[in-house]
This record gives sequence, structure tokens and C-alpha cells, in this order.
Amino acid sequence: MKNILLLGAGRSASSLIKYLFDNATSENWHIRICDISVAHLQPLVEPISFADIITFDVHDAKQRAKEVKAADLVISLLPAIFHIEVAKECLRQEKSLITASYVSAAFLELHQEAQAKNLTILMESGLDPGIDHMSAMRVIRSIKAAGGTLTSFKSYTGGLVAPESDNNPWHYKFTWNPRNVVLAGQGTAKYIKEGQYKYIPYYKLFKRTDELFVEGYGHFEGYANRDSLSYREPYGLLDIPTMLRGTLRRQGYCEAWDVFVQLGLTDDSYDLDGSERMTYRTFVESFLPPASAASQSMAERISLYLDIPVDGEVMQKLEWLGLFEETPVALTAATPAQVLEKILKEKWTLAPGDKDMIVMQHLFAYDLNGEQREVTSTLVAKGDDEVQTAMAKTVGLPVGILAKLLLQGRITHRGVVIPIYPELYEPVLNELEQYGITFVEQEQVGEKKS
Amino acid sequence: MKNILLLGAGRSASSLIKYLFDNATSENWHIRICDISVAHLQPLVEPISFADIITFDVHDAKQRAKEVKAADLVISLLPAIFHIEVAKECLRQEKSLITASYVSAAFLELHQEAQAKNLTILMESGLDPGIDHMSAMRVIRSIKAAGGTLTSFKSYTGGLVAPESDNNPWHYKFTWNPRNVVLAGQGTAKYIKEGQYKYIPYYKLFKRTDELFVEGYGHFEGYANRDSLSYREPYGLLDIPTMLRGTLRRQGYCEAWDVFVQLGLTDDSYDLDGSERMTYRTFVESFLPPASAASQSMAERISLYLDIPVDGEVMQKLEWLGLFEETPVALTAATPAQVLEKILKEKWTLAPGDKDMIVMQHLFAYDLNGEQREVTSTLVAKGDDEVQTAMAKTVGLPVGILAKLLLQGRITHRGVVIPIYPELYEPVLNELEQYGITFVEQEQVGEKKS
Repeated sequence: MKNILLLGAGRSASSLIKYLFDNATSENWHIRICDISVAHLQPLVEPISFADIITFDVHDAKQRAKEVKAADLVISLLPAIFHIEVAKECLRQEKSLITASYVSAAFLELHQEAQAKNLTILMESGLDPGIDHMSAMRVIRSIKAAGGTLTSFKSYTGGLVAPESDNNPWHYKFTWNPRNVVLAGQGTAKYIKEGQYKYIPYYKLFKRTDELFVEGYGHFEGYANRDSLSYREPYGLLDIPTMLRGTLRRQGYCEAWDVFVQLGLTDDSYDLDGSERMTYRTFVESFLPPASAASQSMAERISLYLDIPVDGEVMQKLEWLGLFEETPVALTAATPAQVLEKILKEKWTLAPGDKDMIVMQHLFAYDLNGEQREVTSTLVAKGDDEVQTAMAKTVGLPVGILAKLLLQGRITHRGVVIPIYPELYEPVLNELEQYGITFVEQEQVGEKKS
Repeated sequence: MKNILLLGAGRSASSLIKYLFDNATSENWHIRICDISVAHLQPLVEPISFADIITFDVHDAKQRAKEVKAADLVISLLPAIFHIEVAKECLRQEKSLITASYVSAAFLELHQEAQAKNLTILMESGLDPGIDHMSAMRVIRSIKAAGGTLTSFKSYTGGLVAPESDNNPWHYKFTWNPRNVVLAGQGTAKYIKEGQYKYIPYYKLFKRTDELFVEGYGHFEGYANRDSLSYREPYGLLDIPTMLRGTLRRQGYCEAWDVFVQLGLTDDSYDLDGSERMTYRTFVESFLPPASAASQSMAERISLYLDIPVDGEVMQKLEWLGLFEETPVALTAATPAQVLEKILKEKWTLAPGDKDMIVMQHLFAYDLNGEQREVTSTLVAKGDDEVQTAMAKTVGLPVGILAKLLLQGRITHRGVVIPIYPELYEPVLNELEQYGITFVEQEQVGEKKS
């Protein structure tokens, strides 16, 4: 009997929990689920003997130590900031750990100790980061094995709404932490293009998008992530001339989102004066230059200020959100980003039965025997409903499969590890196919180089 | 004999030192000048008996304590971050202090102790903040005394180059810390207009300027400072519908500066990869979208990207700076802002004999007996040369005059104080007139309200 300790059982944990339960009998697992609030999980575990739930406070060091002690493997889906304390406890008690979060500087410092103690701290094991690494590395490895030299790698991922549930002009609903969507892209995006480093400030990011196409799903657009450069080393692509990682949205989303950025509505750095007395309309008014004539409508003023058509698709998207209406904000001491998040949540939340959709596309260019070639590798994954979402599946299933591999002793990498090795990604990608999480590859051979 | 301790004797201290020396005999002062490097001051003090200089390290707590102990009054022109340690030492040893810097949160905490010990910590006593408070409060007080109600107060200050030394298309040279000029405006500008709070994000700030006019000097433009709201309380204008504090530049400056902002050249938050191998041209290239055709010039690409005329005044300003040339950057691990600062310093430094110019303009609107009235109060002050600059005079002289008033026992306010009281600003403004620092007032009576 192996004991798995799962810390954090919010919405995105549904598919992981299902996977763990489905495998518990054959793998001889006991699963202990810990969360700050567990009432919603009670019906799930009542009928079964191989799982229990407890109320858990990550700040309670004594409880943390006790639970980790009883475990053979710890999985943390807690908010990323809490992982480091969990990891330190795991090291003290010599337990391995899996998370879906980025390797932070604090985690890098644990690498040697984890290695010395023969432990695996497996990070970036969800969707993005996670499946993106695994699927990209499989292609990169096969190109290199055939003798090819990569000249360009671009990779885009988006959590979207499925076409059958897409009933709004933004073609977007929240399938992930809304706050992160509102703040996405802040800072400076860095990438490399034909050997030249490129820097995009936040306020140009949503204007400088790439066009993408997915067979059967149509056109998309992508904007650059903050850091496209740091994966050159782990991917073995230190000399690649072009590399960009980005976020994928439906066409037209970025141009409309840019209005929020240009107005200043995504700013999270200060509280609005008197936000509790604001309406959506006066909120927007705070960011507009004074009207030049009393007769000007808000749409006309935005049109003049930001140089967008007064009756075009962008303005229709804004109006559909109710942004110009006298709806009370009803938030005290809120930042602009918090007000915007509230407005969007009212419109962009998945309704019962709604299906979400993950789209990931890798675009590779490489030279092979003097020929320029291109490979596109694309994943489209849909949710079953608003609980077993594509987001929950693509984050939770790779974590679950890696947990199984670790407990079966089939992972030999030690220290702080991300899934860029065939030993990790091959079995995960193969098992994901059973769940319909499948990449489609398309290859194009270009002209012969002169 | 009164001992004045002057901490910090950089470029901006020249006029203060001259003022202190000129008054030393009649006021029976001894002046001790402390700086981290004092060689340049040696010729100044050699011929006189009432002043000496010493090498001083503000981080040396023992030296700090010893020097403060021997003083009757401390003046600090050190960089603002060092003031708080000096202030705490002054409190311990029960000495009063004058600085030209903003009252920070840390200083507010010293207010009660300073009051209890019967000490005056006089802050914001230079130009901006300083003369701006004093001159504005004189007008505000007279309007209120006459029974008027202020409806609008806007105030702009700029450190510029005098017309006779203005020989570049930007009509600007550095008369102040260049780094602060490069970073100016970052964050969000907040002001109030007709009772509506307004927020301007950094990337719109230089597009949303006001036009200003100064008799005899022509047209200027002003952009909003970060915080226009916090002085409503000390100025006694808590209910004023419109209040804005801003920075003043020559016409056309802001539109061209906005190109730097839009490209991302003023970003100080990250190091450029390989800045030591960059030229001015490749530096700019890093911020441009890839060219759509190899034949496109950099000017054409900037024109397309930012929607500015390819052969207009803005582009001429950029070209005059040498921004598109292959001049080596020659800075290691530099931020974009550091590279830009270096490029600008080569072009915008005052030449020998160059005169700078301070322009300050307050615009008041008020109701008096049912009439709408407007008053404009304007200061233009020129430097004598590149050492006795207008900046050094307008920062140093009010500090010197306030020092004299304090030592003469003519200041009764205790605690952490800014010069918004007639007891402080009346004698300062009167004495400043002897140095040609004079405000010109113009009043306009509008239509009778219906």
C-alpha cells in the first residue's frame, strides 16, 4: 500500500482526483486529500475505502509535518507560493514531490539536497508548463535524431471555450484563475528572432500578435509570453536563432483586450479612490481624457482616444460587457484590475454544461540535408463539462501519470526535475492518448537551399 | 557663533554655499561642509575663516554623530534616501534639520518626537517641492482672504535650457539628475478634474499634455505628475474640483519623448542581453517589430509602428540624437533606461557658458461674488552659467533663507514641517525677489455666473 498525499483540491484538481481514484485499486494506493475547505469533496470519498479527506491549513507547520510524514509521495496543487514550504518539509522527511508550477529560484536551491537524498521534486508537470515541454521535446528529439538542425521554434497555448459553447463576441470564457488572465503579459516580453533579441513592452504586446491556424478549428492569434528565452538551455536549443513561447486566443480578442491595457484598466498597483461609489461607466470615465463636447458618447470618446472605429467589432465587444452602463462596482478600495476582473467574471464564467477547450500549437523549422522543413504539432482537447474541464484534464492527468511512474520506480531522475527527458515524457504522452489528449503532426518540406 | 552643518555639496549646492558664505559674517555663522569627495571645494574655502570642509561618509554612524553634535543646525542636500538616518541623528541630539526632499512615510513618523523636543524638521524647501508650495500658498491665501472659492488649481514646473543656450531640436538639456529625467512619469498619474478622479497610465502620459503660454517665452506643454492629490489637504483645498500638478517642457518635447516610452527604451526593470555588444542602432532594433521588407529604413519602420510621419519633427529629433547610428553602447548588463540615459547625456549636457532656465506656472480659477476669475502666477529664472544654474539657485536659496530664519528664531512651527505657512513663505519669497526670483501675476475676470 502506497500513500499519496494530495495538497490542494480546488476546481483544477477534479481530473487528477478521478485519475488517482481510477488507479487506486490496481496500484494499491491510499489517497489522502487535503484542502482548506473540504465539504464539496465529502460525497466523492464517502462510498470508497481507499481515500479520505481532511481540512488542511498549509500555514500549520505541525499538521504539514504530520501529513507529509505519513505519505509515500506528495502532490501539491496549492497556489504556487505555498509550494516551497511543502518542498522543504518533503526534503526534511525524504519524500518526493510533484507540482504543476514553475521552478522558481527558491526551488533551484533545493536541487542538490534532493539529489543527495535520492529524491525527485518533479515540477512543471501540468499543461503549460508541462505537456508543452513533453510534446515539444519529443519532436525536438526526433528532429535531432534524424540529423536535423532547428532554426525556429514557436509554441502557443491557450485555454479557451469550445466552439459548441462559444456564444459571446470575445470567443472567450474563464477556464483558469481570472485574476491571472487580467494581469497576463504585464512586464516585458522577451524573445529571439533570427538571432536578434526582441523586447515588447506590455502596452504593445496585444498589438504585436502572430496569426495561427488549426485545421478544423480555424484562425487564432498568439501573443508572446514574458520569457521565451530561459527554456533554450533545458531544451538543448542554446543556439536556435528564433524562439518564442506565447499565449493563444481567438482572432480579435487581443485587439479588444488592448483597449483595457491602453485605458489602464488592468493596473493592479494602486487602489481607486472611492471605488465603492463607482459604476462601470464612471470606472471607465476615470481613464478617459475629458470630453471635448458634452454631446460625445463614451464610445465616441474611446474611439477618438484610442483610434478604433466607433461602431466596429472592438467597440461591440466592449458594449457587450456592459462597460458603459451604470452598474455599481460594489467593491471597496479596489484596484483597476480587480474592478475589471469583476466585470469580466459576470460575463465570462462557464455556464452549466459549457465545454472548454485547450489548444496548443508548436511550430518547428529545421534544416535537414540542405532542405528547409517545417513541422507543426497541434493539440486540441475539449472538456466534458464545466467540472471535468479540458484545463483540469490537461493539468491533472500528466501529474497523475507521473505520480504513478514515480511510485512504480520508473523515474530515475533525481533532484529538481522538469519533464524534458524521454523517460518521463514518452510514457506520459502515450497514456494521455488514451484520454484523447493527442498531438497531430503536419510536416512541410520547403525549397532546397542553394 | 552658530554652527551650520551642510551635508552633501554636489553640483546643486553651489548657490546654497554662496548664500551661506555671503551671510556668514553678518549672521556670525561657521559653516562646515561635508561631502564624500571635497577636492573641488578646497579652492572655495581656502581664503576664508568661517568655513571648513571635511570628507564625510554618511554610512559612518560615528562620524555622523560627531558632526551633528557640533552643529546648531543641519542642512542635508544628500540624495533623498540618506535623509532619514540624518534626521534620526538630529532628533537624538536635538538639532533642527532642513532638506529640499519630499516628506516620506518614514519622516511622518518623526513628527511627534520632533514636536515634543521643540525641533523643526523643515522639508520640501527647495524648488519643486519648495518654491511651488510657497508661491502657490501665497496666492491661495489671498484668494481665500478676499472671500473667493477656488475651483481649479494647476501648477507646472520645468527645468529647461534658456533660449540663448537652446541650440537643439528638443529644446531641452539636462539641468538635473539625468536618470530621474529618463524615468520621469513611470507609474500612474492621478489628478482630479471637475470632481472626477482621473488616472493616466505611463504609456498615455506624454500624449495627454496641456498647453501653456508664458509671456515673452512662448508656448510650453505640461504632463501630469504622479500625484496631484496629496497636497489638497496641506493646501486647505480638500474640496477643490480640479487639481493637477505637472512637469513643463517646450512644445514638441512630449510627442518625441513618447516614442521612447512606446518603444520601451525607458524601462529600468531588466538588463538587456549583451548590451555591451550593442550599438545605438541595434538597441533600437531590439524594440521594433521585424521589418516587413529588407529595404525598409529604421525611420520607416518606426513611422509604421508608431504612426508618426517619417520625415516630421519627431523623427528629426530622433535622428539628431544619433539613435539610428552604429555607435557602440559600451555598457555591460545595462537596462534600456541606462542605455537611453547614456545616449541623451552625450547630446543634452550643458556646455560651458550655457544657461539653464526654470519655468513655473500656477493657474488658479476661483469664484468671487458670483464672478469666475482666473489668476496666473509665473516664474522664469535663468542661471548665470553652467555652475550657478537656475536649478542650483532655486533649490539652494530658499534652503539658505529658511536656515537663516530658523537660526534667527523666526520660525515657530515645530515637528516635520513644509513651507506652507505665511511665517515661512512670506520672508522667503520676499528675499528671493532680491535674487531675481520673482513671480508675475496676471488676473482675468470672467463672465458673471447666471
